[in-house]
Amino acid sequence: MSAPIIRRLAELRGKHRDWTMAGESIGVVPTMGALHAGHLSLVEAAKAACDRVIVTIFVNPKQFNNPEDLANYPRTEHEDAAKLAPYGVDAIYVPDPEEIYPQGFATGVSVTGVSDQMEGACRPGHFDGVATVVAKLFLQTGAGKAFFGEKDYQQLLVVRRMARDLDIPIEVIGCPTVREASGLAMSSRNLRLSAEGLEKASRLYPVLQRLAAELCGGASLDALQDDAKADLLAAGFEEVEYLSLNSSEDLRPLKTADAPSRLFAAAWIEGVRLIDNVSVG
Amino acid sequence: MSAPIIRRLAELRGKHRDWTMAGESIGVVPTMGALHAGHLSLVEAAKAACDRVIVTIFVNPKQFNNPEDLANYPRTEHEDAAKLAPYGVDAIYVPDPEEIYPQGFATGVSVTGVSDQMEGACRPGHFDGVATVVAKLFLQTGAGKAFFGEKDYQQLLVVRRMARDLDIPIEVIGCPTVREASGLAMSSRNLRLSAEGLEKASRLYPVLQRLAAELCGGASLDALQDDAKADLLAAGFEEVEYLSLNSSEDLRPLKTADAPSRLFAAAWIEGVRLIDNVSVG
Repeated sequence: MSAPIIRRLAELRGKHRDWTMAGESIGVVPTMGALHAGHLSLVEAAKAACDRVIVTIFVNPKQFNNPEDLANYPRTEHEDAAKLAPYGVDAIYVPDPEEIYPQGFATGVSVTGVSDQMEGACRPGHFDGVATVVAKLFLQTGAGKAFFGEKDYQQLLVVRRMARDLDIPIEVIGCPTVREASGLAMSSRNLRLSAEGLEKASRLYPVLQRLAAELCGGASLDALQDDAKADLLAAGFEEVEYLSLNSSEDLRPLKTADAPSRLFAAAWIEGVRLIDNVSVG
Repeated sequence: MSAPIIRRLAELRGKHRDWTMAGESIGVVPTMGALHAGHLSLVEAAKAACDRVIVTIFVNPKQFNNPEDLANYPRTEHEDAAKLAPYGVDAIYVPDPEEIYPQGFATGVSVTGVSDQMEGACRPGHFDGVATVVAKLFLQTGAGKAFFGEKDYQQLLVVRRMARDLDIPIEVIGCPTVREASGLAMSSRNLRLSAEGLEKASRLYPVLQRLAAELCGGASLDALQDDAKADLLAAGFEEVEYLSLNSSEDLRPLKTADAPSRLFAAAWIEGVRLIDNVSVG
C-alpha cells in the first residue's frame, strides 16, 4: 500500500500529534530520494524499531557545494514512492521548498571537529548545509529515532553531534553500508555511471579492504597509500581525492590503526565523485 | 513559596513530561540572572499566558565577546530565587555548565540579516552565542512560549528568526522595556554603575525620545545625530558607540522614519556598556 505523500509541515505536525497522543514512537529516515537498497535497509531498521516511520525526501541545495552536482542529482519521486510501497511506511514527507527555506530564512547550524577533515575539507559548506537541514527535519518530524547509513560515516557523526549538542531529543542510529554484489557501496550517484564505470568503481571496495587488513597488521597509511592510489588509477578512477585513516569515534586523523578506526576514501570516476569507508580491524 | 531550583536536564525533562501529559502549557523566561523588574515583568507575562513557567538562569560564556564583561557579570542566585518567590513560578532552571556545553560540544547556531548591524557588528560572535544557547534552552525546556524584553530588541528578533527557521515549536513574545523612575532602562549591568553614573545614564532615554519625535516629524538621523551624541557626551557618557534608525521588522538601516522603525543606541558610562531603544512614531 502506497504511503501518503505529505508536502506541508502543518499536515506533518498533525500526524505527529495524533501518533504522539496514541503513545506511538516515530522514526525518520532522511533522504534526498533516488532511493536504493541502502535507503530501504534504513527503512527496514526504522520499521523494526518504531511504531511509525516517516521517510523524508528533499534534495537540499544548501549541502551542495557544486551547482552542477545539484543540477545532476537524480529526482525520482514516483519511483521512490513505488519502492517504498512494500514497506508500509506511514508518511513520505516531500516538503515544498518553502517549508524548509521560507522567505527570509537566515539561520545556519554548523558543527566543528568531526566535520573538519575529509568531506568537510573537500566540500566547503557541505556539512553546514547537512546540519541545518537535518536539524530542521528532526524538529519538523518530531521523531525519536533517526536512521543514517554508515556509507556517509562522517555525516552520521556530524548529525549525531548536532542533535546531541542542540538537545534535540532524538537517537541517531547508524546502519551498515549496503553494497552491490560487486562490492560497490550503494549510492544515488551510481545512477550517473555507465556500465563500464560501475565495473571500474567496484574496484574501490576491495582496495579499501586490502588496505584495512594491512593497517590492521600495524602498517602505516603513509607507507601504503601511494600503491593504493596507483591501483585505483589503474582500475580506471580519474582521481583519488583522499585516502584517510581516522578514529571511528571522533574522526581525528590517525597514522596507524592504534585506536578503533575506519579507512575513508573519495575518488572520481566518469566525473562522478564517490565515497566509501570500511572499519579497520 | 520558593520555586524548586533544577540543575540537571533529566529532572527538567521529567517536569516537562508530567506537565505535557497533564495538558498544561509551558512558558520560559530565559535570563542570565541578576533579576530586576524587567525580568519580573516577563515572568508576569508568562504566568498570565501559560499554565507552567520556567525561569532559566545561565550566564552564557559564548555570548560574551569581552572576557572582562563576563567576569564582571553579576551572579546573584540566592537573591534571584528570593525575587521570584512571590510569582509562583514552577521551576528555576540553573543548569550545571555541562548540561549546556558538555565535553566535546561542537555545534553553533547563527543567524544572519537581523544580526548584522548594531550589537552584531559591535560584539563579534555575540548573537551566535545567544542563538546557540537559546536554541538549547528552548529545546531543553520544551516550552511553547518564550518571553524576551524589548530592551534587547535586536536579540528578540534574532531569537524569533532562529526559532522559526529551525522549526522549534515555540512562540517568541516581546515585552515592553521596563524603566526606572528616572527613565533608565532596567539592566543587570546597571548594578555596576555608581549613584552618579546612574544619574548620568538616565539622560539616554530622554535624548532618544527627543530624537524619535524629530525623526517622526520627518528629519533624517544624519542631520540629528551629531547634536544628540554631543548631548550624551555632555551628560557624562564616555562614548556613544552608535545611534541607529532601523526597521522594526527586519532591522534594515533607515535614514528617515519612512517605515515602522525604532531608534537604537549603545553608549559607555563608567566603563559599562548600556543599550536602549525606543519606537519611532
